[in-house]
Amino acid sequence: MKGYDQDCPVARTLDVVGGKWALLILRDLFLHGARRFQDFQDSLKGIAPNTLSARLKSLEEQDIITSRLYCKHPPRAEYLLTEKGSALGPVVQAMRAWGQAHTESDSVVATRGR
Amino acid sequence: MKGYDQDCPVARTLDVVGGKWALLILRDLFLHGARRFQDFQDSLKGIAPNTLSARLKSLEEQDIITSRLYCKHPPRAEYLLTEKGSALGPVVQAMRAWGQAHTESDSVVATRGR
Repeated sequence: MKGYDQDCPVARTLDVVGGKWALLILRDLFLHGARRFQDFQDSLKGIAPNTLSARLKSLEEQDIITSRLYCKHPPRAEYLLTEKGSALGPVVQAMRAWGQAHTESDSVVATRGR
Repeated sequence: MKGYDQDCPVARTLDVVGGKWALLILRDLFLHGARRFQDFQDSLKGIAPNTLSARLKSLEEQDIITSRLYCKHPPRAEYLLTEKGSALGPVVQAMRAWGQAHTESDSVVATRGR
């Protein structure tokens, strides 16, 4: 029998979307709909291309996102949320609400420092 | 000027509670109220004591949790959510709801495998 952790729905969710990049990838998809590799690369400052590839692949394998070709020659894919991925909206929304209420925008901090 | 990422409330929330252990520590506090070091150690299978120490310290520094002594000799602390930490309830709740709806309990998987 496994312990509590392995069988807790919070932990199971974190197994899928734990880690910073996964939720920021989802955030981009909630904001913009379909996104291309380069869009994520531009938005997620500091992510290495191979890390981004691995995260997208993992999210696709877990049926959180799906990809479709928008160009056949050369093959180029764009990514979209699946129904299961879209159901993570309340998680991203709750994080957004908390961040707005309890953390400060860098621009506010910068203004205050003047 | 910083890019979008650094100034997005979702990313700012992840800066505070990103990573698996932080949210599982909070989950335990939402479930049980005050918790001691050993309680976390028992619940969070596989966490190294120095990792747990570092996570608790970081959450305390960010005013998500607070500690109080329940024994003076020897000094022993227990941990509680602050108001700012309690405000993360909807994040944990949204993760719990998604995990219940979209992931399978290990015990279900085990039963099915019989």
